[in-house]
Amino acid sequence: MKITTPTLLLDKQKALRNISRMVDKARRNKVRLRPHFKTHQSVQVGEWFREAGVEAITVSSVRMARYFANHGWNDIMVAFPANVLEMESINELASRIKLHLIAVNQETVTALAQGLQHPVQLSLKIDTGYRRTGILATNYAEVDAIVKLIREQEKLQFAGFVVHDGHTYKQTDADAIQTIFNTSVYQLHLLRERYKAKFPNLQLSIGDTPSCSIVENIQGVDEIRPGNFVFYDLTQQRIGSCAFEDIAVCMACPVVAKHPDRGEIILYGGSVHFSKDVILQEDGSSIYGRVVELTENGWTESLEGIEVVSLSQEHGVVKASPELFRKYNIGDLMYVLPVHSCLTADLMQGYLTTEGEPIEHLTGLPHRELNS
Amino acid sequence: MKITTPTLLLDKQKALRNISRMVDKARRNKVRLRPHFKTHQSVQVGEWFREAGVEAITVSSVRMARYFANHGWNDIMVAFPANVLEMESINELASRIKLHLIAVNQETVTALAQGLQHPVQLSLKIDTGYRRTGILATNYAEVDAIVKLIREQEKLQFAGFVVHDGHTYKQTDADAIQTIFNTSVYQLHLLRERYKAKFPNLQLSIGDTPSCSIVENIQGVDEIRPGNFVFYDLTQQRIGSCAFEDIAVCMACPVVAKHPDRGEIILYGGSVHFSKDVILQEDGSSIYGRVVELTENGWTESLEGIEVVSLSQEHGVVKASPELFRKYNIGDLMYVLPVHSCLTADLMQGYLTTEGEPIEHLTGLPHRELNS
Repeated sequence: MKITTPTLLLDKQKALRNISRMVDKARRNKVRLRPHFKTHQSVQVGEWFREAGVEAITVSSVRMARYFANHGWNDIMVAFPANVLEMESINELASRIKLHLIAVNQETVTALAQGLQHPVQLSLKIDTGYRRTGILATNYAEVDAIVKLIREQEKLQFAGFVVHDGHTYKQTDADAIQTIFNTSVYQLHLLRERYKAKFPNLQLSIGDTPSCSIVENIQGVDEIRPGNFVFYDLTQQRIGSCAFEDIAVCMACPVVAKHPDRGEIILYGGSVHFSKDVILQEDGSSIYGRVVELTENGWTESLEGIEVVSLSQEHGVVKASPELFRKYNIGDLMYVLPVHSCLTADLMQGYLTTEGEPIEHLTGLPHRELNS
Repeated sequence: MKITTPTLLLDKQKALRNISRMVDKARRNKVRLRPHFKTHQSVQVGEWFREAGVEAITVSSVRMARYFANHGWNDIMVAFPANVLEMESINELASRIKLHLIAVNQETVTALAQGLQHPVQLSLKIDTGYRRTGILATNYAEVDAIVKLIREQEKLQFAGFVVHDGHTYKQTDADAIQTIFNTSVYQLHLLRERYKAKFPNLQLSIGDTPSCSIVENIQGVDEIRPGNFVFYDLTQQRIGSCAFEDIAVCMACPVVAKHPDRGEIILYGGSVHFSKDVILQEDGSSIYGRVVELTENGWTESLEGIEVVSLSQEHGVVKASPELFRKYNIGDLMYVLPVHSCLTADLMQGYLTTEGEPIEHLTGLPHRELNS
């Protein structure tokens, strides 16, 4: 298959290896792996997980849940504070799969109780330090009140507590990530103890890729929900969650111009392809992607002396050393590791494996195919 | 139509007014308006331009050109350095419309000459100060060489010089934008003089929304190619290209959580909806959107004391004054003006007018519908 426009390449062998490592780690630690599918959003990549023994998944929207439910997934958690405006879609899903929702306040619990026609699993999202959303782990009065409210509702089955430690993304120190993980587990453990008399089967679930990649002994929780690890990216490499060689997606971008006066190469590949996510360097400069070279069955590690330094809507600007500048010609393809694989995949609307197989992505599908 | 998930609202009356103002300005100045359609990427919005008398358009990709060609547009410029890997698609388009391409180097001219089966208009992209891509305006040796090369090619019709002054986006001073415009016109004028003996009909074309919005006397060029002005956004308001009341698109986002301890409201609406484009404030803080209230036939100006301060994949975090914090409840919709309307529209894959009419966007269409 000849590549002529920006294309997201997927190294299936690397993705399979990333999946297999996380599956093994979960088995070793006797925790359930409920991978977050928002990274790949692809029914085919989902099948690779199924073949590795995964049965329960996480998604970030009701639309995504419907897509995977339409492809045979029957145990799905929507790991986003339940949006009560989508009651009709929630009911449709709850009528046919084991649906898990998340609440962070009493208003949502009340609205769900009023609108639900089928039982759903409901977990409380706990904030153990990220401060994006969730009930503060020490706000026992609020947790007590919500748990009491859930108990009174026929259609709500109180399932446990979930955490997403997004603040691990600000770390580059494995010890710091281990401490964040330990702190969350400690706080979740106290919550479970508090309610175990009335709810003996409460599940503790934790979610971020840095913790799940870096922590070796995942003790004290029942479930992990990492997502990004299936592809990884430059952000995860910088955090220390993965090596360059684990990054399983790579953009192929046509070279359209060269500017020898400033050592810059212009790619067809901009913010509508990569997203504007950036890595800020210690010297204050920004990196929007790192360049690799294609090999017979994949690509090399990232090259030194060449990087994507700026993006506009369709243009990518690459700064290159004189030697690498000379290597690229107009009409060549340049291969770029993305800063944030989830957002790049969301924009690209599909993949091409390095073996030439097209792989679908939810955003590339017309909405009507999702309503069946 | 009940809104239940993040939805991009389009105020048709504002868009029509923005279109009509630019059409009038072009007529007054006797320049051709060749609007850039990459902002809206919508066949229906395109029709509003056609009804205002527009016949020639600009796009940023061959795919976008094909979409509009399939809907009756016959004079299309792809304002991106020609990607010679797409020769097959270029030929298909050139066989049925008046196609304008852009070159910034000799290699591209040579490759086009070898691959083209039908005549195309070719302009040279000149860099008059932005330093993204283009031939430096004072690099006469290079322009001479490329012009000579074009003259020798049967299928290439040398059309003129185009500029995109993207550096106006860094300005908030109307005088600075006027000076950037004057400088570009001066340099383009010299280029035209240089070649007018051999090419008496060379066209000068200039492109950015800030210049085209702020400069009143658009003298010295033949054509303007602004795009963003159809919707405008917070970036343009900050530059001074428009007032808040001219912004014609607005995101409707469900409120899913409230955190009274820090005055933060969580929206269903994140970087996969808005894009990560940001406005950096003088105090170092970041703004990802400003909040308005819906009115009977549109929305208010942006409210003081409430703004989107952070985005992750699906979450938007809104910081609100105590008074505004109290006004919003779980399950409400919040209405947010985007930082960059082009990228938000590209992600949202479609619009809903304030009168309830769905409007399509190229990215929401399956690829196969584009190949007809």
